[in-house]
Amino acid sequence: MKKIDKLVVCGVGLIGGSVALALRKAGLVNRIVGVGRRPEPLAVARQLGVIDEVSTDWAEALDGAEFVLLAMPVGQMDVVAAAMAPHLSPETIVTDAGSTKRDVIEAIYRHLGPNLANVVPAHPIAGAEKSGPTAARADLYQGRKVVITPLPENSPAAIARVREVWAVCGALLHEMSPQEHDRVFAAVSHLPHLLAFGLVHELAERANAEQLFSYAASGFRDFTRVAGSHPEMWRDICVANRHSLMAELDAYLSELAWLRALLLAGDGPTLEKVFDEASRARNEWADKAFPATPSGE
Amino acid sequence: MKKIDKLVVCGVGLIGGSVALALRKAGLVNRIVGVGRRPEPLAVARQLGVIDEVSTDWAEALDGAEFVLLAMPVGQMDVVAAAMAPHLSPETIVTDAGSTKRDVIEAIYRHLGPNLANVVPAHPIAGAEKSGPTAARADLYQGRKVVITPLPENSPAAIARVREVWAVCGALLHEMSPQEHDRVFAAVSHLPHLLAFGLVHELAERANAEQLFSYAASGFRDFTRVAGSHPEMWRDICVANRHSLMAELDAYLSELAWLRALLLAGDGPTLEKVFDEASRARNEWADKAFPATPSGE
Repeated sequence: MKKIDKLVVCGVGLIGGSVALALRKAGLVNRIVGVGRRPEPLAVARQLGVIDEVSTDWAEALDGAEFVLLAMPVGQMDVVAAAMAPHLSPETIVTDAGSTKRDVIEAIYRHLGPNLANVVPAHPIAGAEKSGPTAARADLYQGRKVVITPLPENSPAAIARVREVWAVCGALLHEMSPQEHDRVFAAVSHLPHLLAFGLVHELAERANAEQLFSYAASGFRDFTRVAGSHPEMWRDICVANRHSLMAELDAYLSELAWLRALLLAGDGPTLEKVFDEASRARNEWADKAFPATPSGE
Repeated sequence: MKKIDKLVVCGVGLIGGSVALALRKAGLVNRIVGVGRRPEPLAVARQLGVIDEVSTDWAEALDGAEFVLLAMPVGQMDVVAAAMAPHLSPETIVTDAGSTKRDVIEAIYRHLGPNLANVVPAHPIAGAEKSGPTAARADLYQGRKVVITPLPENSPAAIARVREVWAVCGALLHEMSPQEHDRVFAAVSHLPHLLAFGLVHELAERANAEQLFSYAASGFRDFTRVAGSHPEMWRDICVANRHSLMAELDAYLSELAWLRALLLAGDGPTLEKVFDEASRARNEWADKAFPATPSGE
């Protein structure tokens, strides 16, 4: 890959910081400029060597920038795209790391019309229960999927450049339409997060919350791990993808209504059939997706 | 602790097998007899040294037995108690490891009336995503809670003996009423299992299940880990504790209905507040309950 002379990373947390570290480790970037809303994470990222410089001004940051990675929560996409627009050179390649794609693409069309050839939306699939620049690691994307949802206006060269950057990070590249992306991730990521946040919230508000939590064990720990995720990031994802997410939630509510009817009827054989199918599907998937240990432990 | 001369374990899987291994490792048992429905796990348990002998006959197994641990799925409790009853000496101490307590206690009252002084219900809180005798380990209960739900008829000596056995396994002992036990575990264990089974089942039945699973990542892996659990064991738990479980499910369905309304309204601030409260509660709990690593990883 041709070295990037100036890389701009907006949002220097786990996601953006890990790309910066991976490119630096590969020796494929000369200079990394961090941009963000708050000075603290930027200062930490500089101390840790994740970025070389902090910029508070898009005109300065984008001046001579070859590659821009937008890795802030998706709710900021509109404001960031609007701020970048007046200063963005037609040569600069831009990609993002947002967990939703339709809303990000709407913001791109709203503000970056003259640059559409070079703005390539993408979504790296990497666990984000920890956040901030201290959580960033050069190997975060090793073997992880990155889904690119190219725009019809994207130039083949820009798509190739974005693929190249993610490949250097160790990622496996996939392409999808933004609509399909948002439906798939509503089902396998956004809904589980909402369900886990909801369960913990409901229990935490009870008078006997302390007693309940004191008897929760490793099953509860694993089930609720995603409820420890970044609240603002997940607010933005849930709001941005709310139509697909509500469709998934409704399908799930139907399943729960059916399970409730089975419980009410004391229908052991059907419950066992459901649990058996789920257990097989889950363990077959986990053994394939996380082959290191049985059942993806 | 006074050595047990003859220990009988009914159900030689993860739960029963781990007690056997812990007592043997501590040198506190002379002879361990395994009882069960199916010959294969018993043969495996004998090969692995989890038990010394296999018995297919309760008269023989209970002859001279000092201590009996019932560690089969709770749905078998009624049949097992009925089969034991004619052969159970008034001196033998009996305990169980069932994840539900009211149904187990009903079976005890139905069949073991003359032995109530010595039949002490209990529930070890140990993850059971893996099952079978090969999963058994001497240290499974180290630092884990065991909840004893004594009967009013239990003798103090029998309760003390059961506590002693679990303490040798490394467990931390707690006492609760059976009613309270079943409510607490419906909330923090049975409901999460049902929710995870339901999510995987609903996705696995879709035409595009393979695509969906192919994009599921570590968040989904953790959220669904409990859906890899033993289907029959969980069928029994859900049927036995269905009244408490339905009450918990209904509370959760109300929470989800509210979250759905927030999504429909696009109410980001309230969603963020919910996620923030959940995230704090979850991480505070996990850091305390699993102090080895931040947020209970």
